[in-house]
Amino acid sequence: MDLKDLIPYQRAFDQYLETELKRFDAAGPLYSPIKYILSLPGKRIRPIMTLMSYHLFGNDFITALPQALTVETFHNFTLMHDDIMDAAPTRRGQPSAHINFGLNPAILSGDAMLILAYQYLIRDLTPAQLSAAVPMFSQVALDICQGQQEDMDFEFQQVVPIASYLDMIKKKTAILLGLSLSMGAVVAGASEESIKSLNDCGIAVGMAFQIHDDYLDAFGNPKMTGKQTGGDIINNKKTFLWLKACALGGVRVQQELISLNETQIDNPKAKIDRVLEIYRSLDLETHCIAQQHHYTTQAIDALNLVESTDEAKQRIFDLISLLLGRNH
Amino acid sequence: MDLKDLIPYQRAFDQYLETELKRFDAAGPLYSPIKYILSLPGKRIRPIMTLMSYHLFGNDFITALPQALTVETFHNFTLMHDDIMDAAPTRRGQPSAHINFGLNPAILSGDAMLILAYQYLIRDLTPAQLSAAVPMFSQVALDICQGQQEDMDFEFQQVVPIASYLDMIKKKTAILLGLSLSMGAVVAGASEESIKSLNDCGIAVGMAFQIHDDYLDAFGNPKMTGKQTGGDIINNKKTFLWLKACALGGVRVQQELISLNETQIDNPKAKIDRVLEIYRSLDLETHCIAQQHHYTTQAIDALNLVESTDEAKQRIFDLISLLLGRNH
Repeated sequence: MDLKDLIPYQRAFDQYLETELKRFDAAGPLYSPIKYILSLPGKRIRPIMTLMSYHLFGNDFITALPQALTVETFHNFTLMHDDIMDAAPTRRGQPSAHINFGLNPAILSGDAMLILAYQYLIRDLTPAQLSAAVPMFSQVALDICQGQQEDMDFEFQQVVPIASYLDMIKKKTAILLGLSLSMGAVVAGASEESIKSLNDCGIAVGMAFQIHDDYLDAFGNPKMTGKQTGGDIINNKKTFLWLKACALGGVRVQQELISLNETQIDNPKAKIDRVLEIYRSLDLETHCIAQQHHYTTQAIDALNLVESTDEAKQRIFDLISLLLGRNH
Repeated sequence: MDLKDLIPYQRAFDQYLETELKRFDAAGPLYSPIKYILSLPGKRIRPIMTLMSYHLFGNDFITALPQALTVETFHNFTLMHDDIMDAAPTRRGQPSAHINFGLNPAILSGDAMLILAYQYLIRDLTPAQLSAAVPMFSQVALDICQGQQEDMDFEFQQVVPIASYLDMIKKKTAILLGLSLSMGAVVAGASEESIKSLNDCGIAVGMAFQIHDDYLDAFGNPKMTGKQTGGDIINNKKTFLWLKACALGGVRVQQELISLNETQIDNPKAKIDRVLEIYRSLDLETHCIAQQHHYTTQAIDALNLVESTDEAKQRIFDLISLLLGRNH
């Protein structure tokens, strides 16, 4: 699969989103930050997953467009509020919503986005579908807030157990991919088993994706990723690699890593080089690849349980490969 | 009716809330600000309205407890986020959530409350009830965000037309009372006509209540209200009275009122006295009472259309009288 295979889904979603954003034009200032953040260039991975998930069970995947818009709107709501909490000045290369519009509009329009996500969720659903979709979405939404809370709590802790880190990224990142992939199946009226397998698959993809992201920050090729190596190291982020190094390196390495974070940085390059040296000495590249492989295998196993055609499932296999930057 | 007639509803609600809050104890820091704000002493008017509304159609009003908790949780979510936006240091005599816990927890826990409100909303409902309740609640929630937006926009405008002010308070305050009163009827399986009439009744009560609140700030007895006269005047709030004075007083009075707001206050008492003098010269007390009477009549007319017993309706008439501080 390459990017052009995503075009039918992307195009359908973009058209649907555009119609929705046009409605916002006459709706006043509450909708300006919403339109702004939803118009920033994005890969639309989550809504594409929802449409592909529907496509496992029926050809008219545009039926799932409202729920595709739910996951995208909800995701962007979390970005808008997280950017306030993280004091992040930019988002996708543009000023964050709270920088562009101010704190109050970013809070209030974010709230409105969360409600809009529910409005899209129930659009055109039967009462039976609705009574499955609303609790599913609500539980994921609440768990994502819990993930953000844990991420903020971790900042005040010197070291965090790897298991707690994995649990946090599961909540903060992975379960929304689980929801994106299962929601299309709910709309298509798939069996509970298939819905559950798609949810498991999406969660495993999300875990692999986050580990891959942590990996790329340390070992990625800046020319390929478009990001400078070591951003997480400079920002003292407790990534999988950093925590794994603390866990594997013994007391001495752990103390050095903590002390590197607690010391005022005069020479960022020297800090990055030293941390990467520690990572290499502990062979973390191999650990990362093994951990990612573990989740990728989980994702594929789960997808194999879905009751659909091999051809339809292949599209999702291919999307997973594309997301994780590898071709199986 | 006096306060003791509310006790059965209040007690049922408080017990239900307490059970819910106990679950939060083990749920970590995300739930601390939620527990805090929901534990502040409040009159619980909205959940009582939901229970009374159910009681119009069935005796087992505890059936509507989850939805009573929805309106109370949603209301407190708006308070938590509004207090950030208004930079309000206190709430019900205690530090606001963002003062007590910090900005980020107040944003994130507020978000979680909005999701919790949906979780309570759908609790124990049939698919058919759910498919009525979720869109109803979502629309009201979104309109309330719109009301808060308009209230914030008004701060940057010198004068606002009375019709715009009434439309804003309808969204910001009144429609949640409409929802509180109609939601119990939805849970009880009442007719669409009765649901609509209760919604109309609640909205009219909310309008009357807000006008009454504006009135008390200027003409209330501080010994009765527990609030200093003129708080709105000192805070330059565009209340019904202030806008009515601008509308009735002609260009000269309007300019004086604007100039009083734009001038640095050295002597708050002199400002209050002068504004009250203007209000009295325009007989605003009479205008307020007439406007409140208009809405109270609307509320009673709407309630009369509800298909229930006179005895059950009398409980709501009495609650309205109690709320508006008068005995009919």
